[in-house]
Amino acid sequence: MSPETEVRVSEQALRRFCLSVLERLGVSPGDAGVWTEVIVETSLRGVDSHGILVLPMYAEMLEAGGIRVDSPVEVINDQGSTLLLDGGNGIGSVVANQAMDLALDRAQKFGLSFVSVRNSNHFGMAGFYAMKSLPMAMIGGAFTNAGPAIAAWGGKTKVVGSNAMAIAIPAGDELPIVFDAAIGASAAAKIFLAMERGERIPADWMIDRDGQPTDDPQKLFAGGVLLPFGKHKGYGIGLILDVLTGVLSGGLFSTSVRSFGRDMSEPLGICHSFCALHVERFISVSQFRSRIDEMIKNVKASETLEGVDRVYLPGEKGFLTREDRKLNGIPLWGKLLSDLANLARRLSVELPFLAN
Amino acid sequence: MSPETEVRVSEQALRRFCLSVLERLGVSPGDAGVWTEVIVETSLRGVDSHGILVLPMYAEMLEAGGIRVDSPVEVINDQGSTLLLDGGNGIGSVVANQAMDLALDRAQKFGLSFVSVRNSNHFGMAGFYAMKSLPMAMIGGAFTNAGPAIAAWGGKTKVVGSNAMAIAIPAGDELPIVFDAAIGASAAAKIFLAMERGERIPADWMIDRDGQPTDDPQKLFAGGVLLPFGKHKGYGIGLILDVLTGVLSGGLFSTSVRSFGRDMSEPLGICHSFCALHVERFISVSQFRSRIDEMIKNVKASETLEGVDRVYLPGEKGFLTREDRKLNGIPLWGKLLSDLANLARRLSVELPFLAN
Repeated sequence: MSPETEVRVSEQALRRFCLSVLERLGVSPGDAGVWTEVIVETSLRGVDSHGILVLPMYAEMLEAGGIRVDSPVEVINDQGSTLLLDGGNGIGSVVANQAMDLALDRAQKFGLSFVSVRNSNHFGMAGFYAMKSLPMAMIGGAFTNAGPAIAAWGGKTKVVGSNAMAIAIPAGDELPIVFDAAIGASAAAKIFLAMERGERIPADWMIDRDGQPTDDPQKLFAGGVLLPFGKHKGYGIGLILDVLTGVLSGGLFSTSVRSFGRDMSEPLGICHSFCALHVERFISVSQFRSRIDEMIKNVKASETLEGVDRVYLPGEKGFLTREDRKLNGIPLWGKLLSDLANLARRLSVELPFLAN
Repeated sequence: MSPETEVRVSEQALRRFCLSVLERLGVSPGDAGVWTEVIVETSLRGVDSHGILVLPMYAEMLEAGGIRVDSPVEVINDQGSTLLLDGGNGIGSVVANQAMDLALDRAQKFGLSFVSVRNSNHFGMAGFYAMKSLPMAMIGGAFTNAGPAIAAWGGKTKVVGSNAMAIAIPAGDELPIVFDAAIGASAAAKIFLAMERGERIPADWMIDRDGQPTDDPQKLFAGGVLLPFGKHKGYGIGLILDVLTGVLSGGLFSTSVRSFGRDMSEPLGICHSFCALHVERFISVSQFRSRIDEMIKNVKASETLEGVDRVYLPGEKGFLTREDRKLNGIPLWGKLLSDLANLARRLSVELPFLAN
């Protein structure tokens, strides 16, 4: 198939496929269900770098031992509103889902909570966990560190991961606000895509091995280093996220975290944190919702720059993409199609699209 | 005096001057002491846009009624780990200092805390409050909203303030990490300075009234609008900060907050939040400190870009500037010199430098 080929697959078909793959690789039905939910929701919201795209890598890690399927989350320190967990190098999404549920439960009881987790794995889209706060009318947060990928501001050594944060804010009639961002000026996946397509990248995304700005995506594989978003400010936020996850949890941080996709047999040692805040400790939920709606309407009423049709709220495009993809299917393209076909063949699982 | 004139004043002399000005304007000795401490520490750390530079504006607001001196902080809702306060349109720094002390006290008792404050005023450097966590070996956070100054990503209407956040992280032998940033691509004060000096500004700081990028600082006064740092990500963080301060506290948010320096008789209605997290809920303080030191050493060992002597940690330049200014005095320059001289003359207060 050419790199430009694109097929659309229904969420139901993709869900069945994920479940079959994961169960075939020894994941329990319960865990496979949670993991599939995270993967499919991520793809539905258009965060293509963290959705079905990474299933083949997850499969390799399951087979090689980098992700353990038999390792329960262990509670290291439970003090009510705060919890320290050890993920036992298990399934990142399953560990994270459980940790966020605990954060919400504790915030329900204590008004606010902070749960830190060490020895986890790649957990996909941070927003998935933060958004679990929305039905409970709480503000939810999810943070993670990641393998070293980004230079300090002024440096050319990879010392910070493209650490990510998501914050979800319940609204009233409007869509919730879901801020979900990694600290890289770009996701590595976008640079891969530009490379596959033979395109150039903006010059503020990356430096080459000599520390020179470059618009050539190939340079990423020749010692290139990603830059943080927003210069020294993004770099600072990256360090703070590492402190709140890796350092605080007693797990791996900074250059000791292992990079996703490098050695499939080694757990990544990624650390997360989750927090929740009950708005009713401050004002009533209905007041909060209507005030958020007012803020959103206010922002949406912005005059726009030339060529911009309208202003979006954080997370809004994700909700719109989800609506579209629920109706029209999730797009799969290029190398992903053959990767999934190979995976299906190897595991004797039915493919949700026609391979040729 | 020419705009290039610079004098250096000792912190002691500047402190005496601030105290005299504030007491002369009816501020109680206790409140004047706290406020002076914030102003002088801000100037010592090199955050010149928020230090002694704004004393003349504070003085005008005190005289015109925008800042009230007789209005105690009111507790609206106290639930232990969370607190909602009303600042009564009092002195921003005094309100914030009290709120942060409460956040630290509650985190000491409950492991973590979140204190939200409405109806406050400009509070200076956010890092001042966050850093109060350091002697207690806690992680401290301080957030504030501000009058509308920044466009949504893709918009050209001022819908977000240059909201600010500070996070302070205790270290061991190394200097603490203090991340302190506003969400504007640049502080308005830097644009004023460029204008005074007849310099151009980087093209990603601002758009003109028509939404076109501009490097002309004059355009700020002709309907220009500041851009967020880090494109859509900085814009998103700006909204989240407004939610955590203005929306959550029941105070003013988004376009309803009043801009500092506009109408001196009207309280700004700025809202803040403060939080603290006890690291011992997760790992021991000594472990935490040595892990932070390890992270810092790791970052400092970065190879640097051409022309960069070394990599700095967030807040490190502030500590170095403080050391220098404690020794060599705080620089005052340009229009600030005559503003302070006028203030001293008007209030019959002794000036800490020779006016000509």
